[in-house]
Amino acid sequence: MRPARTRPTPPLSPHETLLFEAGIKLGGIFHQYLGIPVSRRTAASLERAIESAVGLQPFVRRARVRIEPERGGPLGRGRFAYRYLVPEMLDVRVGLRDGAEEVEARLRHRPDLRYPLMSVVRVTGPPPLRRAPRRRRGASRRA
Amino acid sequence: MRPARTRPTPPLSPHETLLFEAGIKLGGIFHQYLGIPVSRRTAASLERAIESAVGLQPFVRRARVRIEPERGGPLGRGRFAYRYLVPEMLDVRVGLRDGAEEVEARLRHRPDLRYPLMSVVRVTGPPPLRRAPRRRRGASRRA
Amino acid sequence: MRPARTRPTPPLSPHETLLFEAGIKLGGIFHQYLGIPVSRRTAASLERAIESAVGLQPFVRRARVRIEPERGGPLGRGRFAYRYLVPEMLDVRVGLRDGAEEVEARLRHRPDLRYPLMSVVRVTGPPPLRRAPRRRRGASRRA
Amino acid sequence: MRPARTRPTPPLSPHETLLFEAGIKLGGIFHQYLGIPVSRRTAASLERAIESAVGLQPFVRRARVRIEPERGGPLGRGRFAYRYLVPEMLDVRVGLRDGAEEVEARLRHRPDLRYPLMSVVRVTGPPPLRRAPRRRRGASRRA
Repeated sequence: MRPARTRPTPPLSPHETLLFEAGIKLGGIFHQYLGIPVSRRTAASLERAIESAVGLQPFVRRARVRIEPERGGPLGRGRFAYRYLVPEMLDVRVGLRDGAEEVEARLRHRPDLRYPLMSVVRVTGPPPLRRAPRRRRGASRRA
Repeated sequence: MRPARTRPTPPLSPHETLLFEAGIKLGGIFHQYLGIPVSRRTAASLERAIESAVGLQPFVRRARVRIEPERGGPLGRGRFAYRYLVPEMLDVRVGLRDGAEEVEARLRHRPDLRYPLMSVVRVTGPPPLRRAPRRRRGASRRA
Repeated sequence: MRPARTRPTPPLSPHETLLFEAGIKLGGIFHQYLGIPVSRRTAASLERAIESAVGLQPFVRRARVRIEPERGGPLGRGRFAYRYLVPEMLDVRVGLRDGAEEVEARLRHRPDLRYPLMSVVRVTGPPPLRRAPRRRRGASRRA
Repeated sequence: MRPARTRPTPPLSPHETLLFEAGIKLGGIFHQYLGIPVSRRTAASLERAIESAVGLQPFVRRARVRIEPERGGPLGRGRFAYRYLVPEMLDVRVGLRDGAEEVEARLRHRPDLRYPLMSVVRVTGPPPLRRAPRRRRGASRRA
C-alpha cells in the first residue's frame, strides 16, 4: 500500500476554489443572521439585505434567500408575538462563478435530519471532454 | 467551441466535500464571534470555546484558534478599556478529514490585503498515482 | 390635563444607568451567541467564555451562564448529532453594580410565553429611607 | 450607617422598564450585525432591515439606523474591495414608549473614547408634578 501524500500547497483549481468559497458563504449566512427579529411583514426586507450582503463577496453571482417565519414554531402572544430567525425558516441558494466554472450551493433545514443542511446542488464546468479524467478518478475511488 | 455543461448533481468526492466543509467552518467562525468582548485575560477562554464548538462540526479533526486582542487597535480608557473581537485579532486553523483525504484551512487577517483571508493551506490525499488525471485536468485548464 | 414633558437630557441616576446597562448585556448575549455549535460536552466551555466576556463590560460584577443543550429539541443522527445554541437552552444572570446600587437581570426562555424573557430580578439600593419618595411615586402612577 | 437593602423584586415602573428595554435593543443590535458585508451600495438595504427588525421588539416606536461604510477604514482591492460592518460605521437611534413615558437611546461610535457608546439621549414623561419625588430622590443621592 502506498502511503498517503501531502500535496504541495495548492493553488486550488477554479472548481475547487468555488467549492471552498461556497462553503464560506453558507457558513457565514448561517452564523451571522440567526436571532434577528422577523415576522411575515419584515421577512422580505431581511431577505433582500442578506442577498445584498452576500452579493458583495468574492465569486458570488446570484443569491436567493427565502425566509418563512411560520416555520419557526408557535408564536408568543401580545408584545411577544414575533419570532427570531431560526434555521428552520431559511432556504438560501448562492451561485458562484469563476471563469467557465460555476457552483450553486444551498442551505436548507431538513426536518428529516433535524439539521440545517448545506450542500452543493449544481456544478457547471467547461466542456465535457476535459472532464473525463475527473470522472474516472471518481470511479476509481470506489473501486 | 463546445458549450459549457451542467454536470449531474454531485455527489462530491471526499476531497471536494472537504473543501466545501472547510469553507463552512471558516465562514461560520468569522460571522459568529465578531463583537464578543475580549481582553488579554479572557482570550484563552474564548479560543478554547471556539475550538470546542467547531470541533463538533462534521469532518473536523483539529481546530486551533489564536486571538491577539492587541491587534484590535488602541484601547479605550477606564471602563471602556477592553475590546470587541475584530477580524484583525484572529488566526484560525481547522483540519478536516474524510477517510484518507485531509484539508487544512486557515482564516487570518492579511494587513497587506486589508482583508480577513480564508485559504486552504494543506491538502493530503491518497497515493499520487490516483491523482494523475486530476493534475492533467488542471494543466489543460490553462492551455 | 397637563401636557407630557421632555425632561432635559439626563444624566441618569446610578439606578437608572444600571437598568439600561443590564439590558445592554442581556440583549447582547442573546444576539451574539445563538448558532454556536454546542453539546453536553462543550457546554461548560461556552458558559465560561460567555461569562468571561460579559465580565469585561462596564458595571458587571457577576455573570452566571447555564446552557442545557437538551432543551434544544431532538438531535440529528451520525455526523449531525449535535446542536446549535438556541434561546431555549439559555439561563443567564448578570449582576451589575454602581456604588451602592445593584441590579440583577436574567435571560431565560419561558415556555409558557414561547419567548426568551429578559427581566430585572433583583434591585439593591441605598438605605430604605431614601427610597420612600420613589414608592409613593409608583403608587401615584396607578391612581 | 444603615445597611443596603434589597428591594422586593420589582415590577419596574414604565420609565424603568423602558430604560432596561432600550438597553436590550442597542445591545442586541451591536452584537447581531457586526461582520455583515456592506458597501455604499448596500448600506441602505441593511439599514432598513435592521430598522424593521428592531421595530418588531416590545415597546419600540421608532428606529433609525445609519451606516457609513467609509468609516470602516481603508478598503481592500479587487475582489476584496468591500467591508464588513464594524462599530465605527453605526449610528442607531431607537425610541421606546410605554403609555406616557418615552425613552430614546443611541448607539454611536465615539472616536474620542475609542468606544461604541450606548446612551439614553432623551426621556419624556408624564407631567412634571408627578416627577417631583423622583427629583428629590435624585438630589438626595448626591448629598
